[in-house]
Amino acid sequence: MSRIKAAVIGLGYWGPNLARNFQVSDDYELVGLCDLDPKRVEKVAANYPWAKHFTSADEMMRTAKPEIVAVCTPVASHAPLVKTALEGGAHVLCEKPLAANVGEASEIIELANKRERRLFVDHTFQYTGAVRSIRDLYTKGSLGELFYVDSVRINLGLFQPDVDVIWDLAPHDLSILNFVIGKKPVSVQATGSSHNPRGFADVAYLDVRYENDVTAHLHLSWLSPVKVRRMIFAGTTSSVIYDDLEMSEKVKIYDHGVTFDVSDIETRKQVLVNYRRGEMRAPALDNKEALGVELREIASVIRGGKAPVATAEEGLSVVRVLEASQKSLKQDGARIAL
Amino acid sequence: MSRIKAAVIGLGYWGPNLARNFQVSDDYELVGLCDLDPKRVEKVAANYPWAKHFTSADEMMRTAKPEIVAVCTPVASHAPLVKTALEGGAHVLCEKPLAANVGEASEIIELANKRERRLFVDHTFQYTGAVRSIRDLYTKGSLGELFYVDSVRINLGLFQPDVDVIWDLAPHDLSILNFVIGKKPVSVQATGSSHNPRGFADVAYLDVRYENDVTAHLHLSWLSPVKVRRMIFAGTTSSVIYDDLEMSEKVKIYDHGVTFDVSDIETRKQVLVNYRRGEMRAPALDNKEALGVELREIASVIRGGKAPVATAEEGLSVVRVLEASQKSLKQDGARIAL
Amino acid sequence: MSRIKAAVIGLGYWGPNLARNFQVSDDYELVGLCDLDPKRVEKVAANYPWAKHFTSADEMMRTAKPEIVAVCTPVASHAPLVKTALEGGAHVLCEKPLAANVGEASEIIELANKRERRLFVDHTFQYTGAVRSIRDLYTKGSLGELFYVDSVRINLGLFQPDVDVIWDLAPHDLSILNFVIGKKPVSVQATGSSHNPRGFADVAYLDVRYENDVTAHLHLSWLSPVKVRRMIFAGTTSSVIYDDLEMSEKVKIYDHGVTFDVSDIETRKQVLVNYRRGEMRAPALDNKEALGVELREIASVIRGGKAPVATAEEGLSVVRVLEASQKSLKQDGARIAL
Amino acid sequence: MSRIKAAVIGLGYWGPNLARNFQVSDDYELVGLCDLDPKRVEKVAANYPWAKHFTSADEMMRTAKPEIVAVCTPVASHAPLVKTALEGGAHVLCEKPLAANVGEASEIIELANKRERRLFVDHTFQYTGAVRSIRDLYTKGSLGELFYVDSVRINLGLFQPDVDVIWDLAPHDLSILNFVIGKKPVSVQATGSSHNPRGFADVAYLDVRYENDVTAHLHLSWLSPVKVRRMIFAGTTSSVIYDDLEMSEKVKIYDHGVTFDVSDIETRKQVLVNYRRGEMRAPALDNKEALGVELREIASVIRGGKAPVATAEEGLSVVRVLEASQKSLKQDGARIAL
Repeated sequence: MSRIKAAVIGLGYWGPNLARNFQVSDDYELVGLCDLDPKRVEKVAANYPWAKHFTSADEMMRTAKPEIVAVCTPVASHAPLVKTALEGGAHVLCEKPLAANVGEASEIIELANKRERRLFVDHTFQYTGAVRSIRDLYTKGSLGELFYVDSVRINLGLFQPDVDVIWDLAPHDLSILNFVIGKKPVSVQATGSSHNPRGFADVAYLDVRYENDVTAHLHLSWLSPVKVRRMIFAGTTSSVIYDDLEMSEKVKIYDHGVTFDVSDIETRKQVLVNYRRGEMRAPALDNKEALGVELREIASVIRGGKAPVATAEEGLSVVRVLEASQKSLKQDGARIAL
Repeated sequence: MSRIKAAVIGLGYWGPNLARNFQVSDDYELVGLCDLDPKRVEKVAANYPWAKHFTSADEMMRTAKPEIVAVCTPVASHAPLVKTALEGGAHVLCEKPLAANVGEASEIIELANKRERRLFVDHTFQYTGAVRSIRDLYTKGSLGELFYVDSVRINLGLFQPDVDVIWDLAPHDLSILNFVIGKKPVSVQATGSSHNPRGFADVAYLDVRYENDVTAHLHLSWLSPVKVRRMIFAGTTSSVIYDDLEMSEKVKIYDHGVTFDVSDIETRKQVLVNYRRGEMRAPALDNKEALGVELREIASVIRGGKAPVATAEEGLSVVRVLEASQKSLKQDGARIAL
Repeated sequence: MSRIKAAVIGLGYWGPNLARNFQVSDDYELVGLCDLDPKRVEKVAANYPWAKHFTSADEMMRTAKPEIVAVCTPVASHAPLVKTALEGGAHVLCEKPLAANVGEASEIIELANKRERRLFVDHTFQYTGAVRSIRDLYTKGSLGELFYVDSVRINLGLFQPDVDVIWDLAPHDLSILNFVIGKKPVSVQATGSSHNPRGFADVAYLDVRYENDVTAHLHLSWLSPVKVRRMIFAGTTSSVIYDDLEMSEKVKIYDHGVTFDVSDIETRKQVLVNYRRGEMRAPALDNKEALGVELREIASVIRGGKAPVATAEEGLSVVRVLEASQKSLKQDGARIAL
Repeated sequence: MSRIKAAVIGLGYWGPNLARNFQVSDDYELVGLCDLDPKRVEKVAANYPWAKHFTSADEMMRTAKPEIVAVCTPVASHAPLVKTALEGGAHVLCEKPLAANVGEASEIIELANKRERRLFVDHTFQYTGAVRSIRDLYTKGSLGELFYVDSVRINLGLFQPDVDVIWDLAPHDLSILNFVIGKKPVSVQATGSSHNPRGFADVAYLDVRYENDVTAHLHLSWLSPVKVRRMIFAGTTSSVIYDDLEMSEKVKIYDHGVTFDVSDIETRKQVLVNYRRGEMRAPALDNKEALGVELREIASVIRGGKAPVATAEEGLSVVRVLEASQKSLKQDGARIAL
């Protein structure tokens, strides 16, 4: 089976990880590396003597002829660079969020369809053992119905130069939620505040409602003294706490529950609440690097196989929530339908 | 100095704590115990052979003639029982929330003024070493300006029969916030959901804005698999994390900060963000029982002294936010001015 | 079924807990309370108007005629007071350690046999849900063979006036170990040091070997800045960590293991080590107060039933290890056979 | 200032880290990489196109002429390879433990002196911000006198093919202790057990006494279900807990203490114990990679400067304790003088 020729555009924080994972994979051959900054290209390329380097995406498409291009640049340039890659005949794996707005995201999806190329969005978390185990638990009914989901994703900095804290951090939560819940978000409410001279929100809270009436609440912040990455999936049968900063027990399943006995509600106006507190368990998780899993599954899809990869439509769904959140922020927290 | 004659109405969960603290204090003499349920009175009274027992508040006022009455009944009966006590000539320490609505709260405050009796509200947390240390830090400027406050107060149950999760849990946070911030809340937004047959909210989020533009966000839940009692006070100079479930290090002060350098904002459209990560410290806290401190300070005020006790006005301020939160809940999260 | 008449001698730290548990139990009737200090008796007795009070054990035996006596005094007085109680015709529940040395412990056991009275030792931990769950796991083979046990029982103070840190803290561990392992200790080695003017050891390490070759290691200290109560039971199949300071997850079972493949040991001088890392789980534990469970089971035994209660022989076994540990300490850590 | 020519022998687990740190340092030029396994050399060398590769140390010394050689092979080969390097005219940085026994360690130290070359031992921990901050605290008197030190260094595996758990793990603790305490160990006692077919100890406890009467106790294990890296330095004035697995608060200083008032000891045979519980603080630590700091300081020493580097004598001191520990193990825990 021949290797898929791969290239990376954007060699800042995340791009080098993609380069390394293309390199160590048997499915790919790393043929090109591109960044506007020639020094950056040179530095990264030193580790990949076989890959050509470029400061122009156009030139890379013409010269290196990659079959897949990973776009890892700031969000404003996603749409134009994805277009360049698609028009150059390549499939694309685009960093999240997929685009700077719904219009651009829709446009590149359309183009991909027209060109019959695949457009993937890099929702890395859904390839982790932790998130996959939570989805399995929910799908198999181990959690029962979901009461609600609460997520806290906070730390000190890093302030992004081009986006607010919602665009920076919420894509992680929203992609996890889409993946686990398997339903579409129908509305969102956002509140937040800005304490920096650029005026971007650096603290925000999102309240996202899903088709099946589950509500997810997100606390996003660049101003917390400590780093927290913690989600609660509260279910009727059991509940999950997912702490991504735990070394070995990221997912804890609590066999706790609440049931309501309404047999007395007519005669005595009473509801009897029953609590159950069973065991807690932390399953052994697959701890393969998520990016490696992702690239393997993407290769399989490109070759005509099937895999639960994140499609551009999922990327669009996330952008839709982000855009609506900003609208809600400007309207002092009004609920925005999606 | 003669002891102040004290009585307790309502001997459910909290009342017995008040009885015990009146009993062990040198400032008070416990003279009366009252509950509608005669068995309950008898059981509690067994520990206090000197106190008389009652099933009628009126009778208790006439017979035992207490100088202060602690009202520890469900919130719906606060106003009528406070009236009975005031009209019987006693000062009152009322369990929080002060009353079931703003109207009733205002009424009993007016009555207290008219009768020239003191009406205190039992905001216990503000008598703890932890909360007092945080107020001191903020007042003395150690935290700088507050970016925002986030509070998580969640656990599995206990579902209250008469109030929703906001009325049950938010009074703790709101009274702490009033005490620490020292400013009035100006508006509130609430979202939440109900998963029980009574239709009360069992999960809710409050977004409370204060005069000085500080925003406090509350996560309140009866449906979390684990118990959390955690507040973040994020400041410009340093930040505090207050975890009430920690045994010995409830308050942690992080000498971390963010500053913004805008000198380049005109020419290069850039803001330089500087992070500072200093030491963390957990001060030694006064761990005297809060209720004992509270009763001592109340005694001092009754005798004409001064102490930072929680007045009925503070109780009213909390009820105002609770009432507005319910209004916001019904209006799908609309911001309600206070 | 008539209630067993119970009395308590020694009303310092632990005695009042016994009084309270006798009082709330349906199996007992609290008839007597005794302490050398008349003020102490009076204070405790205030809560138990039906019990008579004494400052002399002899008088209490004659007057109150208890059927069971709990001895909760400093260890030096255990033997004489147990004798008084046995000779007065009562069964005895003696605080641990059973006696100040092996001679005295043997003597009171002999007396109990002669008088045909039961002599119980108060090894409270073996009545907890946590320790019972660990014994069940081990007994049923869930842990496989035990590699070793490590226990850390340290905190700042409280310095005891009459015994060293070994006599103060090790009885807890030794009684738990006897109960869980179900084998006899065969030798002990102790090292330690003293940093206080009385010359008692305030830090000590014990290395106790059991019949089945399991070794248990104890770290005991009054000089640690933090309190730790943590035991590791490392097994071939799975392992347990028991943290008594955890609120809700005291016992954690790790389905981790090591196996050795020696098939290559002859030809290639190699041993292949295989690691297995499965799930961790924290079982739901019975959280009834241990002392209540203990008294109920003791009542059952007195009435001719059977229950896994701690007998005086177990108390003697613990004293034997304590005595040998002190001998080892004096011989600079020499191994002492038991 | 010209760069020091550096080479690495042994490219297993640790060698590549040295190669990388030589490479990124301005003080060194990486000129040679050597391993008996040609595939391993090739794989590592791919990242360092400028370094020559070798499977023979002799050839490397002749051809690449390094001025410093890092020896990162299994301990049995340390002495012969250090000799090769010294005789080839290079300074040596030897992985810990310095040699397989005291005899070999002394021999290579003598050779280094004779050849006037520097022989360093790679006690990496003493270049960390955490360990340096603890030494500073102790040296400046902030801890007062040390009561004792307790260290727990346990995890599941990794079983080493050539050494027991003491030789594998204790060098870390012993080098930290030498560095912080600044005194020589005078005796050691070791107990332990073996549960694997090779018969090496896989659990061990060391009790090391120092010149100034401080005792350090080590718990070393390959059989613990969880990983722990935790040291307690209990002092008279304050105490330190150093948890190397904590992300951001590795060192915690507890301003707790115990003092003894002996004024009553003559008349009333009493010692009054006073406890003090002050604040806890976690200082901000230098989090530069220890190996980078180490190489910079070694470069400075080679160039005639001064720095607190770990000398071969310190390496010898550690080997001396390791050798004595094994002797003690064989003598069932007898105390061995050093």
